[in-house]
Amino acid sequence: MRNFLCLAALCLLAVPAAADPLPSWAETETKAAILDFVERVTDSDSPDYVTPADRIATFDNDGTLWAEQPVYFQLIYALDRLKEKADADPLILSSDVLRAAAAGDVATVAAGGIEALLEVLAVSHSGMSVEAFQDDVRAWLETARHPTTGMRYDAMVYQPMLELLSYLRDQDFQTWIVSGGGVHFIRAFAERAYNIPPEQVMGTAGPTEYVDGAVMKLPGIDFVDDKEGKPVGIDSRIGKRPIFASGNSDGDFAMLEYTTSGDGPRFGLLVHHTDADREFAYDREGHIGVLNRGLDEGPDRGWVIVDMANDWTQIWPE
Amino acid sequence: MRNFLCLAALCLLAVPAAADPLPSWAETETKAAILDFVERVTDSDSPDYVTPADRIATFDNDGTLWAEQPVYFQLIYALDRLKEKADADPLILSSDVLRAAAAGDVATVAAGGIEALLEVLAVSHSGMSVEAFQDDVRAWLETARHPTTGMRYDAMVYQPMLELLSYLRDQDFQTWIVSGGGVHFIRAFAERAYNIPPEQVMGTAGPTEYVDGAVMKLPGIDFVDDKEGKPVGIDSRIGKRPIFASGNSDGDFAMLEYTTSGDGPRFGLLVHHTDADREFAYDREGHIGVLNRGLDEGPDRGWVIVDMANDWTQIWPE
Repeated sequence: MRNFLCLAALCLLAVPAAADPLPSWAETETKAAILDFVERVTDSDSPDYVTPADRIATFDNDGTLWAEQPVYFQLIYALDRLKEKADADPLILSSDVLRAAAAGDVATVAAGGIEALLEVLAVSHSGMSVEAFQDDVRAWLETARHPTTGMRYDAMVYQPMLELLSYLRDQDFQTWIVSGGGVHFIRAFAERAYNIPPEQVMGTAGPTEYVDGAVMKLPGIDFVDDKEGKPVGIDSRIGKRPIFASGNSDGDFAMLEYTTSGDGPRFGLLVHHTDADREFAYDREGHIGVLNRGLDEGPDRGWVIVDMANDWTQIWPE
Repeated sequence: MRNFLCLAALCLLAVPAAADPLPSWAETETKAAILDFVERVTDSDSPDYVTPADRIATFDNDGTLWAEQPVYFQLIYALDRLKEKADADPLILSSDVLRAAAAGDVATVAAGGIEALLEVLAVSHSGMSVEAFQDDVRAWLETARHPTTGMRYDAMVYQPMLELLSYLRDQDFQTWIVSGGGVHFIRAFAERAYNIPPEQVMGTAGPTEYVDGAVMKLPGIDFVDDKEGKPVGIDSRIGKRPIFASGNSDGDFAMLEYTTSGDGPRFGLLVHHTDADREFAYDREGHIGVLNRGLDEGPDRGWVIVDMANDWTQIWPE
């Protein structure tokens, strides 16, 4: 009997406290709101229970899952590749915009708007198969380094968001990327960086053409997965309204509105970049990740705003 | 000891033979080829082993998963709805094409080509939210009956293909629909009919618009998921080359070519409609499901051709 009691006591001692699924989130209302929502929709005794097939969560990429300053990383890739191609064949620099871009003059490219951007992307993002493009993106990620942190670009992913993705998947959510960035670009690293397979990544896309067994990238853009394009893309690719959506800029407003205006339990999460020391601080002004309407209307709509400086105990993965 | 031996003998007797995953497939070379392929790619000791993440199987819908004669079922839906709307408001019949369509004159609509078809679809397939459209498709399926079999349209699915879908999923394949039919139309019944969720259905698509929390269907077509559009759609939605593809017409040729021209083990399957008694017999001629190049080149490419009359012991589910 004494042995039995000892054994029972040991068993009790050995029962671990449930592991914290979000260790890099501080014990704030933000974390509590996320945990409460997920518990409610996954508890089959809860009135808010949602069947696993409908547990769709969508995430913006730039500024939500990885950093986006000083400019979108994909643009840095485009300029690096343009410069490399121009070194081999200077004749490809056939316009002022391309010459500026190859010289790293982002301001001139930005001033030229969408047409200037398309001109740059036509050189760096078309005229090859999708596979060849993605091999090239992966090769670039191996050697390119961020201008201020010196880190690999694909190491500048947010540890708290990796934990959130993982936690949601453990609770039978599908985690999708819905990005204004290029779909082929993101798919090149999303599986390794986020554990998100290509079929759960949507993004801005150019035309492609099937030729003799391969899908080739052509110049141009025929779907912009930003603003009202996000719900349109979600309908086109997923065909269901998400119950959870996360973004960081007004480009994500329509996605959060679409998500949270459905019936039943819904969750909208906006990452507010408030941490100049560990990451970057920006919101209402600038050329990247502008967040006005989300800050103004989000709280009244029940959306949760992540205050990066206070809600996250760690920014980058170890 | 005698009891033990009796028990052991009973156990041996009680071990069932492995259940046949494809009971409606006759014991022919076709069935053997499917089983052999799936066993090779799922056996981790096989040189042909494929990791579950890459077990992507794509299926055409009309003529491959369900019947398509005398005309695509979606066209019958469109004409039924047009007629109903015209009964309520005759003024919508504002052209010869629409008047012919409302009178059920398929030949005139067909003679008008894609423009006539778009005119009909604009009335029946746009001006409502995606959800409202799909509710309407489901309501139609409840009452509409096939003109020659008298069956529900969504009962005219092929039992052997249901078994194949199920078998592949049991072996950790993803089963996708890649259809020339409308994506919103197919999603309205694919989950119930095939156990395929909306996010694994792609098809021909019209433009949509996000307005105040809803995705609205607009007139027109901006992606045709047929012929060379199928590999383009697969790259856009899945981002990986399938290892298994199945179709029934030359509209599926590019999808099978794309699938089977990748490295490693690949499987192409064409359903040949040879069974006038139990279903329909058609191939090289007609307006629906024309199959020429697939019959001519498929066997040399290693594609397996289903002879419906001989390979399938049953056509429709019980």
